[in-house]
Amino acid sequence: VAVPFGGVWAVVVAAGSGTRFGSAKQFAPLGSGTVVQRSVATARAASDGVVVVLPDGLASTADATPSGRLSDDPSVVVVVGGPTRAASVRCGLASVPSDAAIVVVHDGARPLASPALFSAVVDAVRRGADAAIPGLPVADTLKRVEGGTVVATVDRADLVAVQTPQAFRADVLRRAHASGTDATDDAALVEQAGGRVVVVAGEDHNIKLTTAADLDHAEAHLATADDRP
Amino acid sequence: VAVPFGGVWAVVVAAGSGTRFGSAKQFAPLGSGTVVQRSVATARAASDGVVVVLPDGLASTADATPSGRLSDDPSVVVVVGGPTRAASVRCGLASVPSDAAIVVVHDGARPLASPALFSAVVDAVRRGADAAIPGLPVADTLKRVEGGTVVATVDRADLVAVQTPQAFRADVLRRAHASGTDATDDAALVEQAGGRVVVVAGEDHNIKLTTAADLDHAEAHLATADDRP
Repeated sequence: VAVPFGGVWAVVVAAGSGTRFGSAKQFAPLGSGTVVQRSVATARAASDGVVVVLPDGLASTADATPSGRLSDDPSVVVVVGGPTRAASVRCGLASVPSDAAIVVVHDGARPLASPALFSAVVDAVRRGADAAIPGLPVADTLKRVEGGTVVATVDRADLVAVQTPQAFRADVLRRAHASGTDATDDAALVEQAGGRVVVVAGEDHNIKLTTAADLDHAEAHLATADDRP
Repeated sequence: VAVPFGGVWAVVVAAGSGTRFGSAKQFAPLGSGTVVQRSVATARAASDGVVVVLPDGLASTADATPSGRLSDDPSVVVVVGGPTRAASVRCGLASVPSDAAIVVVHDGARPLASPALFSAVVDAVRRGADAAIPGLPVADTLKRVEGGTVVATVDRADLVAVQTPQAFRADVLRRAHASGTDATDDAALVEQAGGRVVVVAGEDHNIKLTTAADLDHAEAHLATADDRP
């Protein structure tokens, strides 16, 4: 990947326990591998290297994948996550080379994000944003509720529902996480620090796999789509 | 259906052209019938009668369903809709008997709503609310965007994503629609008029069918669930 300054590294966060799924969903079979293998392969194709953050109980990839390896690529590094998503991102960031200029954070449970989406967020940061995130228009009517009663209908015209991959200037992301804040959302940390976060068009099929039905949905998408990262 | 006052009628709104779907999605095959037939059957089981609002071009049910009928039930009435959703709801309301005490408005494209969900919203109105709507917690991170740049992360802790069926005191709904306002959301009209709208727990599988993939999803749900309204 040609970059005008430094390199691009991805942090794929797959440290959740997947309780809704009945098992660690990131290791469920999908296409020719597992969910997380597909997420990592797409991230790797769009970067100079990937840090994959796995749960403590599955610290050894030998426990996590049928082949005992997430990838044979030496630029795919596996580390152990922390108790929260933010802690896991920090674990991943600690293994990103210090000369990386851009870091892309991606949910391991979003295996259907396209290479084009990775490029779009990285390019937006190259053009000067502190961070770039994919967003989709909000289709649902949203209400604000207090004590079971509606107090307002939310104006959704200028709202987006956010996905990953999210690209960051490496220095901005490291600074945002230095506080140790337990945010569920990396971009929010950058916003709070006054950084400029831009939105690129998200992808309808780029769902976060949460239930077994989501996994069926993902398989069906792969069956009809071009099956390659 | 035993009600302490007046009757319960449902208005099933299926007047959209379904452009994203490539055809009128409400007439796509689903289970043993069509999408709208399933929506109507569930609504009928929870009410004393149903007014089904169809598109102008498909005013005759003979055009709309393989059998030429939506239902053989004389308490299922078919009317032609208007140019907007609100206009179509008004077309339906005009055919609801004047002694109906509660009106349930339901999207024809939500065929997977359960009978229990209809009961839940109707019961909440019987207990004194002006309206009752199903809502689910918002899973996505939401951002407010201006000119492509994030200006805020939305606090979603007290937000719900709204579904149908939505139940209303009949007089309240008629009054809310009397203004002719072009709202996409019936409950919002009631809120604006100062009515009390309560939220009951929505259903994960109660999606609004928008794309062909949604329809596959619905078929898969029926294959694993109890297939009856």
